[in-house]
Amino acid sequence: MNNERLTGQIAFLVEIDKLKTVLRQTFLIDGSRRENSAEHSWHVSLMAVLMAEHADNPALDLSRVVRMLLLHDLVEIDAGDTFAYDTLGYKDKEEREKAAARRLFGMLPPDQREEWTALWREFEDGETPEAKYAAALDRLQPVIHNHYTGGVSWRKNGIVKSQVLRRLQPVREVSETLWQFASDLLDQSVEQGILLNDPNTEGE
Amino acid sequence: MNNERLTGQIAFLVEIDKLKTVLRQTFLIDGSRRENSAEHSWHVSLMAVLMAEHADNPALDLSRVVRMLLLHDLVEIDAGDTFAYDTLGYKDKEEREKAAARRLFGMLPPDQREEWTALWREFEDGETPEAKYAAALDRLQPVIHNHYTGGVSWRKNGIVKSQVLRRLQPVREVSETLWQFASDLLDQSVEQGILLNDPNTEGE
Repeated sequence: MNNERLTGQIAFLVEIDKLKTVLRQTFLIDGSRRENSAEHSWHVSLMAVLMAEHADNPALDLSRVVRMLLLHDLVEIDAGDTFAYDTLGYKDKEEREKAAARRLFGMLPPDQREEWTALWREFEDGETPEAKYAAALDRLQPVIHNHYTGGVSWRKNGIVKSQVLRRLQPVREVSETLWQFASDLLDQSVEQGILLNDPNTEGE
Repeated sequence: MNNERLTGQIAFLVEIDKLKTVLRQTFLIDGSRRENSAEHSWHVSLMAVLMAEHADNPALDLSRVVRMLLLHDLVEIDAGDTFAYDTLGYKDKEEREKAAARRLFGMLPPDQREEWTALWREFEDGETPEAKYAAALDRLQPVIHNHYTGGVSWRKNGIVKSQVLRRLQPVREVSETLWQFASDLLDQSVEQGILLNDPNTEGE
């Protein structure tokens, strides 16, 4: 085998298998165990296809959204998964993830290294319509999981409704329908006693 | 929330979480545990993007390939993962999977039910260039895993090289480069004693 490009690509493919061992705070919906970042990436990529009609922007390049979501968490192989509500962990998150992107995408042939790094940066920067839609689903998926597992990760970490609402702002920006759905889901979660209400939203 | 389409889509999204609990014969590359079908679907979807340049057909609709790969294993939620070399299991595989497709895709709004069922059928029929390329990667990914885990699943199931070669024929049809790579990998596996040679290929 004398194909330098393919050799790098296969090494990358073998390396990214490690994403299957990066655990998130979210649980599988059957509550049996924590979800890993590879499974999450699959779920949210499929969700992007499934929910495309609910995006307020009808001109999304769905193919780029899916590619972004497939690779958006790869940096966690080195940097770990930072829990959404971990303010301390977020302080050096960017630094750690940038180094991870350099190492991981650095395994690819130069043109692909640039392309994949750019897709990852686009997701992180969250400025294009595609990145906004991708980020919104990335935020919404764990909320659905949390609701359907009886709020196990919310309760374990003492999360209150206003924190979840803040995390979900990207949903509001891309889809009126999904935002309405998410707000209703949080209201139900509070009613069911699986998500804490907090002084800021009391009585809402 | 009064949106019938979205209600069905969310129910589907929650239901397909179960794919994360369907175990394959393949192990993670670190050998720690068996891979599940959701992780596999993620890995092979990303692989399709990564390896597109090696497809002999330059006119592939990569976006359709990825959508096909994201959903190709969903039927296993009801039908289970049939091991590639399980001839008995293959007898009623088609029947079981058809029923699964009816139930699962039946949860979606009618237009999506038709579209997703058609994508799944396209993958299963393996006749379009996109389906052929998708199937080739679906066959190649576990072979890479098996090689890099020291052939754990091959050895456990007494698999011989000619069986793997037969499984890999779809790769030969779509990519000269990937076929060459796969053949070399199997030769190395036999040399390393992690894959059995068999009378039909002895001396090759």
